[in-house]
Amino acid sequence: MATKVNTPKGTKDILPDEMVNRNYVINIIKNQFKKFCFNQIETPSIENSSTLMGKYGEEGDKLIFKILNSGNYSKNIDKNLLDKQNKEDLNFLTNTISNKALRYDLTIPFARFVTQHQDKLHFPFKRYQIQPVWRAEKPQRGRLREFYQCDADIIGSKSLWQEVELIQLYDQVFNDLNLDVTIELNNRKILHGITEIIGEIDKITDITVALDKLDKIGAEKVKEEILSKGISKESVDKLSELIYIEGDNLEKVKTLKRILSTSEIGKEGIKELEFILDALANIKLKRAKIVFKITLARGLNYYTGSIFEVRSDYGDIGSIGGGGRYDNLTGVFGLKNISGVGISFGLERIYMILEQSKIFEKLDRNITQVLFLNLGELGALESMKYISILRENNINAEMFPDSQNIKKQISYANKRNIPFIAMIGDEELKSDFITVKNMSEAKQDRYTIDELLNIFSL
Amino acid sequence: MATKVNTPKGTKDILPDEMVNRNYVINIIKNQFKKFCFNQIETPSIENSSTLMGKYGEEGDKLIFKILNSGNYSKNIDKNLLDKQNKEDLNFLTNTISNKALRYDLTIPFARFVTQHQDKLHFPFKRYQIQPVWRAEKPQRGRLREFYQCDADIIGSKSLWQEVELIQLYDQVFNDLNLDVTIELNNRKILHGITEIIGEIDKITDITVALDKLDKIGAEKVKEEILSKGISKESVDKLSELIYIEGDNLEKVKTLKRILSTSEIGKEGIKELEFILDALANIKLKRAKIVFKITLARGLNYYTGSIFEVRSDYGDIGSIGGGGRYDNLTGVFGLKNISGVGISFGLERIYMILEQSKIFEKLDRNITQVLFLNLGELGALESMKYISILRENNINAEMFPDSQNIKKQISYANKRNIPFIAMIGDEELKSDFITVKNMSEAKQDRYTIDELLNIFSL
Repeated sequence: MATKVNTPKGTKDILPDEMVNRNYVINIIKNQFKKFCFNQIETPSIENSSTLMGKYGEEGDKLIFKILNSGNYSKNIDKNLLDKQNKEDLNFLTNTISNKALRYDLTIPFARFVTQHQDKLHFPFKRYQIQPVWRAEKPQRGRLREFYQCDADIIGSKSLWQEVELIQLYDQVFNDLNLDVTIELNNRKILHGITEIIGEIDKITDITVALDKLDKIGAEKVKEEILSKGISKESVDKLSELIYIEGDNLEKVKTLKRILSTSEIGKEGIKELEFILDALANIKLKRAKIVFKITLARGLNYYTGSIFEVRSDYGDIGSIGGGGRYDNLTGVFGLKNISGVGISFGLERIYMILEQSKIFEKLDRNITQVLFLNLGELGALESMKYISILRENNINAEMFPDSQNIKKQISYANKRNIPFIAMIGDEELKSDFITVKNMSEAKQDRYTIDELLNIFSL
Repeated sequence: MATKVNTPKGTKDILPDEMVNRNYVINIIKNQFKKFCFNQIETPSIENSSTLMGKYGEEGDKLIFKILNSGNYSKNIDKNLLDKQNKEDLNFLTNTISNKALRYDLTIPFARFVTQHQDKLHFPFKRYQIQPVWRAEKPQRGRLREFYQCDADIIGSKSLWQEVELIQLYDQVFNDLNLDVTIELNNRKILHGITEIIGEIDKITDITVALDKLDKIGAEKVKEEILSKGISKESVDKLSELIYIEGDNLEKVKTLKRILSTSEIGKEGIKELEFILDALANIKLKRAKIVFKITLARGLNYYTGSIFEVRSDYGDIGSIGGGGRYDNLTGVFGLKNISGVGISFGLERIYMILEQSKIFEKLDRNITQVLFLNLGELGALESMKYISILRENNINAEMFPDSQNIKKQISYANKRNIPFIAMIGDEELKSDFITVKNMSEAKQDRYTIDELLNIFSL
């Protein structure tokens, strides 16, 4: 009875080769998280639906994977709901048969975590988290239904030094990954100020949602979208003018300062931005460029201050990182007045870029350092003893399990690119020697175990 | 609008302290997996329901978490199914609204993986996998609905050296964890032989399922269960006699050899067991005891040869590891004649034992090595520069983000057990010195950054 054998749409297995690449990237990131003093946490994959629903907008709610209640859920189904095909009835039906859902991102679960464990945490609390999330999206290149997110957040202080630190963290990680990146910086308060100046402050959400799509759909389509939200053509023209300010970071700041001089919140945004740019100019980044981008909006509406986005300088693959300041994230869970700021790394896209940059080709993906051939029961027993000694000395060693067909054993070592094979045959059994063959030089020699340990520890 | 803030029943958050414990255990296991040359893989959390259903018995099917199809699933519901409350109708209904499910263990997904990727793998293929699984069980101590499994399998060879190697692997890991354990060993072929001898070969599944519960429910209840399956009292008495053989491993082997002399499969089982015991007597384990336990059955019916189980010698918490040989696991997915053998580590129970053994208390859970106090903007900027240098030299350093209230900053360092605090005040700004206080000795001194690097690198 053969069943269909593949992973579900939008999910994939990670084979050993790719696992080595992923671990390489994740270890670099973890190493910097540690130096920057972030604590690791994990949250469950499953959350109560009430924790997740309504936090990601209507579109997000649809993309959350819901888990069917166990037991006989069917007795709770109200048949009358099945006839009506509207959204409300479907949601109601879903609530009768499902009360849990799969994590959609790491941010809302973290807000729930902070609220739930507030008594056990010391604020400011710095946490990192690397775990999969699930979204019922249409799968496409670089966008799966199950993928890892990798977030670092600091919660419990409004200090702008944290923004400075998070940008340094980006800089260090991308430097370690040998990637040239540009970190785009903006502030929601500046966007707020701009909507104030053009007289459309109540439309700030529509404007930021539309602006967020600028790189994807272009200026014309953004204009159309904003117009469709009932904003006057006059305001839109004014907006277009304001956001296309030319010049370097300092020149843009100078121009905007003048434009926003009558907006208190706009001026506050500029002040925050200047503090961050000043500090970074003093401390100096290792490699990343930092650009003040007035059109950077970030769609999520929980941001309230600084926002960041990272782009690779090689080809346009979209953002490979992003984040920002949120003053109210735990508010929905009843914990008020806690400010936080966080960034995330777009692991899947970072992998895609590194694949192109060929850095993965240089990684050592050779788990076995020496394979003992199996030349019969006595030799095998002796080999297993030597293998124990090698492992004791941190050398990855193993034996081919079956003794038949030496050619097949050697071909196995070749296919797996194992650098050394070792042999214990009749002659070796009579002596203290192990015959070892260097597979790349096709050269073989006899060594005692001590000599072998020396060779491998070089 | 405050929502209920907790994790769903049977799931939990992992806070930084516990994360340190878990990483300690997992790193020890991973380190040995590497020395034994196992490759890491990952499979998706979500599998097609057709991959999972029917593989874990009827009870298992019920415990699998099903994921509701996205979109308007409700239009596929056949109302007539809602009236009938029998199992078949519920299953049918579930299939109309759900085609994906959460991983229940790592073994079936691995069998699916091997079948799907057979052309890309070199056999024998050794893989390890550490990922969460989900079961809709009643939560109890040491048994959650979401928990990590940790499996190592070798697939593509029938060699008994693999059983030897896997037992060595258990021995090394538990030695590294400083835990005294007993590895119980048996062979399904011996159990097969025994049912042959008592004339109940067609009841082998009922007998192994019942025997598997021996430690949990006791001999009397096991007898009752076997009797209830239609096995004669005579056979049950004979069985009781056979499985309670006294003596050490060699004595038990000797007695069983005589008893099973007319059963071909029984003799094969004994021969395999002897090979493993012989090899281990020659190679020697570091710490674990190995016991041939005739009543060891393991409930899962895919095992066909050797079976293992590990028990801690401190108190009875149940098995902390188990596994065995399966000759046909990929058969259900259409890939025939591939033998495999594997073991798994019961991480949650291992944590519970280590918590009692107080080994976790000795772990360094101090992520921050030095905290710079924030004594105002200029000092903070200078501090951030020094912090960059410290991090560059692999020292975990950070600054308190806010400058108000020095007492609060020191109390924060104390609460987090940070060993050193550093200060850049007005005097330090005029010099090249950093004032550093050792929090445990309440002693402070001035150092240059080079002196500080020296201190921390000791």
